Amino acid sequence: MKNYITHHEWCIVETGFHPEHNEITESLMSLGNGRMGGRGNFEEKYSGKTLQGNYVAGVWFPDKTRVGWWKNGYPNYFAKVINACNWTGIDIEIDGEILDLNTTKVLEFSRTLDMQTGVLDRNCLVELSNNKILKIHSQRFLSLVDDESGVINYSITPINFFGTAKITISLDGDVSNKDSNHGEKFWNEISKETAHSEGYLTLETKKSAWETVPTFQVCTGMKFDVFQNEQLLDFQTLPIKKEKYVANEFKLNLEEGQEVSIIKFAANLSSENYSIDKLEESTKAYIQKISKKGFEIMLQEQKAAWAKKWEGNDIQIEGDVAAQQAIRFNIFQLQQTYTGEDARLNIGPKGFTGEKYGGVTYWDTEAYCLPFYLSTSEQKVARNLLVYRHNHLQKAIENAEKLGFSGGAALYPMVTMNGEECHNEWEITFEEIHRNGAIAYAIFDYIRYTGDAKYLEEYGLEVLTGISRFWSQRVNWSADKNKYVMLGVTGPNEYENNVNNNWYTNYLAKWCLTYTIECLESLKNENHHKFQEIISKTQLDYTNEINKWQHIIENMYFPFDEERQVILQQDGFLDKELLTVQDIAAHRPINQKWSWDRILRSCFIKQADVLQGMYFFEEDFTIDELRRNFDFYEPMTVHESSLSPCVHVIHAARLGKKDKAYEMYVRTARLDLDDYNNDTEDGLHITSMAGTWLSVVQGFGGMRVKNGKLSFEPFLPEQWQGFSFRTGFRGNSLKVSINQNLIEIENLSANSISVQVFGNEVTVPAFNTQTIAF
Amino acid sequence: MKNYITHHEWCIVETGFHPEHNEITESLMSLGNGRMGGRGNFEEKYSGKTLQGNYVAGVWFPDKTRVGWWKNGYPNYFAKVINACNWTGIDIEIDGEILDLNTTKVLEFSRTLDMQTGVLDRNCLVELSNNKILKIHSQRFLSLVDDESGVINYSITPINFFGTAKITISLDGDVSNKDSNHGEKFWNEISKETAHSEGYLTLETKKSAWETVPTFQVCTGMKFDVFQNEQLLDFQTLPIKKEKYVANEFKLNLEEGQEVSIIKFAANLSSENYSIDKLEESTKAYIQKISKKGFEIMLQEQKAAWAKKWEGNDIQIEGDVAAQQAIRFNIFQLQQTYTGEDARLNIGPKGFTGEKYGGVTYWDTEAYCLPFYLSTSEQKVARNLLVYRHNHLQKAIENAEKLGFSGGAALYPMVTMNGEECHNEWEITFEEIHRNGAIAYAIFDYIRYTGDAKYLEEYGLEVLTGISRFWSQRVNWSADKNKYVMLGVTGPNEYENNVNNNWYTNYLAKWCLTYTIECLESLKNENHHKFQEIISKTQLDYTNEINKWQHIIENMYFPFDEERQVILQQDGFLDKELLTVQDIAAHRPINQKWSWDRILRSCFIKQADVLQGMYFFEEDFTIDELRRNFDFYEPMTVHESSLSPCVHVIHAARLGKKDKAYEMYVRTARLDLDDYNNDTEDGLHITSMAGTWLSVVQGFGGMRVKNGKLSFEPFLPEQWQGFSFRTGFRGNSLKVSINQNLIEIENLSANSISVQVFGNEVTVPAFNTQTIAF
Repeated sequence: MKNYITHHEWCIVETGFHPEHNEITESLMSLGNGRMGGRGNFEEKYSGKTLQGNYVAGVWFPDKTRVGWWKNGYPNYFAKVINACNWTGIDIEIDGEILDLNTTKVLEFSRTLDMQTGVLDRNCLVELSNNKILKIHSQRFLSLVDDESGVINYSITPINFFGTAKITISLDGDVSNKDSNHGEKFWNEISKETAHSEGYLTLETKKSAWETVPTFQVCTGMKFDVFQNEQLLDFQTLPIKKEKYVANEFKLNLEEGQEVSIIKFAANLSSENYSIDKLEESTKAYIQKISKKGFEIMLQEQKAAWAKKWEGNDIQIEGDVAAQQAIRFNIFQLQQTYTGEDARLNIGPKGFTGEKYGGVTYWDTEAYCLPFYLSTSEQKVARNLLVYRHNHLQKAIENAEKLGFSGGAALYPMVTMNGEECHNEWEITFEEIHRNGAIAYAIFDYIRYTGDAKYLEEYGLEVLTGISRFWSQRVNWSADKNKYVMLGVTGPNEYENNVNNNWYTNYLAKWCLTYTIECLESLKNENHHKFQEIISKTQLDYTNEINKWQHIIENMYFPFDEERQVILQQDGFLDKELLTVQDIAAHRPINQKWSWDRILRSCFIKQADVLQGMYFFEEDFTIDELRRNFDFYEPMTVHESSLSPCVHVIHAARLGKKDKAYEMYVRTARLDLDDYNNDTEDGLHITSMAGTWLSVVQGFGGMRVKNGKLSFEPFLPEQWQGFSFRTGFRGNSLKVSINQNLIEIENLSANSISVQVFGNEVTVPAFNTQTIAF
Repeated sequence: MKNYITHHEWCIVETGFHPEHNEITESLMSLGNGRMGGRGNFEEKYSGKTLQGNYVAGVWFPDKTRVGWWKNGYPNYFAKVINACNWTGIDIEIDGEILDLNTTKVLEFSRTLDMQTGVLDRNCLVELSNNKILKIHSQRFLSLVDDESGVINYSITPINFFGTAKITISLDGDVSNKDSNHGEKFWNEISKETAHSEGYLTLETKKSAWETVPTFQVCTGMKFDVFQNEQLLDFQTLPIKKEKYVANEFKLNLEEGQEVSIIKFAANLSSENYSIDKLEESTKAYIQKISKKGFEIMLQEQKAAWAKKWEGNDIQIEGDVAAQQAIRFNIFQLQQTYTGEDARLNIGPKGFTGEKYGGVTYWDTEAYCLPFYLSTSEQKVARNLLVYRHNHLQKAIENAEKLGFSGGAALYPMVTMNGEECHNEWEITFEEIHRNGAIAYAIFDYIRYTGDAKYLEEYGLEVLTGISRFWSQRVNWSADKNKYVMLGVTGPNEYENNVNNNWYTNYLAKWCLTYTIECLESLKNENHHKFQEIISKTQLDYTNEINKWQHIIENMYFPFDEERQVILQQDGFLDKELLTVQDIAAHRPINQKWSWDRILRSCFIKQADVLQGMYFFEEDFTIDELRRNFDFYEPMTVHESSLSPCVHVIHAARLGKKDKAYEMYVRTARLDLDDYNNDTEDGLHITSMAGTWLSVVQGFGGMRVKNGKLSFEPFLPEQWQGFSFRTGFRGNSLKVSINQNLIEIENLSANSISVQVFGNEVTVPAFNTQTIAF
């Protein structure tokens, strides 16, 4: 655990330079606008510890899958979002001496990410040779408004000397990924061009062995203005061209006390959004557009755009600055990662902050992120997350076919970029099939929240049908149990592999079949024409298939311990030695201290599994059932997935286990800010940040949707004086504040809103507030 | 299935050239002498399909392990026996035209491996440009007597022309492995030298990242004589040196009808057997020694050495040439692969015939090969196979420690070269732990066969203790079952992964604990001093450890189906859809037609699992129990491991299922000769050849050891007129012949021998024969 980030309500602040933590700080200071993003690298050369990373959403490479022994059905490639052209470069040489904070004496330093505006700011005083003192100030942001662009305002001021500066402003596409198999690079150069204070570089991803995967082109452009003492300079620039690199170099005389500032405009346009033959032309036009607009106007627009986002999603915590900073950091990073503008995009586990997990889509999106966007963003944002999976339906059907399923059964991949499976462990890709259930659940969750039942006829039912068909083929009849069983499964708890009858997966499957039938029946009654359309599109043999599903629903097997009256995570769970986390305190984290063999055979749980199911289907269980299962499983849970604690916060809150709820919350909230797991340098845990938000809103706030209305059963952690959160709901907007024993519901909309508080109906008139004691 | 190899009792004959099958033929024509080996490649250049391969026993490289996501306890590297210097090269150019059977017109061709002598012979008539007809004859063998050498007698005869020949005689170390990750080469050059008609090349395996693995040096030397018209020629040679390559080139005038023959002597000396600083010197001396001896004497010695081997292990089958050829081929290849001269060596699944499986040691050695060598070779051969594992005991203890075991528990690796684990799938390395049991069983099997109980005190008990300690830690107490269980196991049937309570493994573990206690107790009573020595060496806490073992023995859980009265392969087996192989005829082989997901969830069995256990512990079960289990499991068995059918032959024979026994036998016997599985081109299935031998001797011959005596319960397959086999037993030698209803026991030793035939004691006086009707 690190503790060098200054606590501040709105900013992430590094006070004083911590080169030993630079890669962590780079992760924390990452910028993104949904369309592009990158780590908080310095603009100028830095020879110290750094992971240089810039990413363009939707642009990736199908890298070779590495496995020991190939088996049928294994995926062909491992998709990864690749490190793209570094557009931030501004290299400085003063009197022949290269500015490099790794070798120069740093006198003063602060780096600040202002989450209110999305601007990264750095102030720095360095001492060059011969006691020359230089001040550096840089501001950088990725525009939310012009979301293919980034701008930098970079200035240097010689404090106590006159001299000459050589400044090189570059686009550098000669980059590689840290985790490349053998340091391979993934880009080829297509073209490059320089003009006075401008540069353009078009790169293409390398052709791979996989014909189904297209190559991508990205044109990166830049233009810059240079001011000295606030005067725009007009001067000669020397163009430099190298392999996958363009730059402009120029020299200036520095005057003591006079600031030289460079405004650098840059844009990344990709062939996903522009025709290839006009890519460079479009980039030039884009660059002209933003440079004309200018830094100040772009900055004002940026501030306004972020203010609007915060208006809908801010959480305030009173009496705990560290917690306040943390929750805003999580919200901010989620909003930087995914804006919902483009249904082809999704949320990688590290967003734009690192390479790990390849930047691809996992079930994290549906299970954790969707509720966040449902509550904090316009409806279309969550809807686009659903449409993303609908667009991949055909690929999911093909994926199931590769494994031997047929008749339109769909198995969504565990890890994907374009709908194809690209993970490389059989125990995950073939077996961690509960992801299919989460994708179905997300449809239910979206409709429950938004009331947008039309989504079903338009997209949802096709997906549900494909998934239900998969479940109906994936189970088999056990003559021994006289029940349907599901063999060879890995549940959410990945510390078990290839088990039989994982309760969570069986339950999700049964639920999915039930929900699909309900939705089909309801459509059949309400809109027979549309119903017929779906039947025809999916070629559903209605009577036979539904009958089979119904038979499965009625005869599904669920492992259960009669003695303890608890659900069993899977068949044979009670054969394990049932220890608790306290018994192995010295052995944690077990994923670092134990062999995989020992982990698999132990009872220890990586992340909520039975309890994940009880979270999804809360209303199916009594509070006693929940308590028994929580008390049985929580003590065995090591939370070695960042997605685990939030579910426990929510259950613990419901069970009145306040200390446990807060303890679990603390594990998630500052995970990255304090680098709990020693891995923030690889990037941030973006998808688990949604879990932190869930902890506050669903856990402490007790927010649910019940019968089409929001419901609240809050409690205030002892450590806080109060907290409030904003949420949207079906076109309206609310602010919910909890202080001691009071809950205040502020209706910010022009409609009256009706909610439930601890089961009691409360109506809040438009632009009005109701306070309820509890 | 191919059918181009001519049936012949003693020879493997390719009549007419089959370039399309050349890689298969190269595998079939492989030569070895236990110390070195290589594929049946042509001596001269060949631009067609070929897998060029030469191997030096005990010389290997720790290649990078390729896995998706590294987890604790995974092995660091994947050991592979690497392709070594090609010492066979004799390139021919006639009047500027390169002799290459891929481009030259082949008029006549035959390639013959004489199994009686271990000599590979090739006769060939080719037509060069301008109708020049050239005869080629080559003979090659690897000497059993001088087992670091090979010799070639290569001759060309111009049938209808005069001309010039340029001949290049080479050692080529610039070779790579077919399966290298990225075509990497594994050798560095240390030195090279040429002299008149001599050449020496010293190579070293590359340094790897794994410090525990040494590098190896191999010096390959050659010397040759050239004869024209049977006269030794004296002429100038031009030395050629290239990277990892030396050669001598010379030119000759060819006279019509006059044979030019080259005798090439070669040797491979490795740093495993010679000090590095004298490696080249030793090689020169070795080359001098064999070249002085000369081709003819070496050939005579070779014939005598093979005749001696055949004397002890030949099997004769009357009335079926194909079967006769096949069984001899299997015996021959086993004898080429392992001679038992060196306890550091073992039996790779492909021997010296290809690269697949890395040439490393699997449990095949103990479970299948050991009985072959016990019966057909001097006692020390089998003993050295046991000593090999004893030598690796410390590494096996370290391997177990890596996985979290302690106190001297030993887990032998699934795949190894030097005692370290080097496979790369967790479901195998961590879970296919039954190999540990096979290693214990081999000790029992060896002692049962040889009566050499002294082996226990010298080596065996230490190994048994380490393995027993492993089992005692690997099981855990199930409070639910009130029994010891073994979780997370892969049995011999690798079409199940990570199951609980694999019956075979549980049974083997219990047996191993029982046998270890028996052996310790017996030693304690018979030789207390020696007993104390072992206690002290193993630091065995005798009372406590033995008590724990005893408790496990008494409380081990075994899955069983009360209804069918059959053993269950593992927990939950009855949850599967119980189909038979007949139900899926169109889907076979399932490992090519089904996804791994489908295979794992199916009931289909790759190789004997429960039935493997009933084979090892035949005496523990009644014939009815065997029949019930055979009838239950055999119909689900797809035999997609070459190690599977033999066990079924033996059981079927015992159950009187003659047709089934013969059907299964046919699957193993000509597996490679007829290329049943389309994979002979990768190399031969060496270890499974021992299974074929078991099928005949233990299956049809019904040979067992009972109460320290050989026992026979033979039957004659209808397809044969008779068969006989040779076997050694405790210093004596027998020939057993079965004809219709007669069994003839010929005692070839100077001692009277007592055996059992169908339970009746039969005494055969020295050098005498007894015939018993049945």
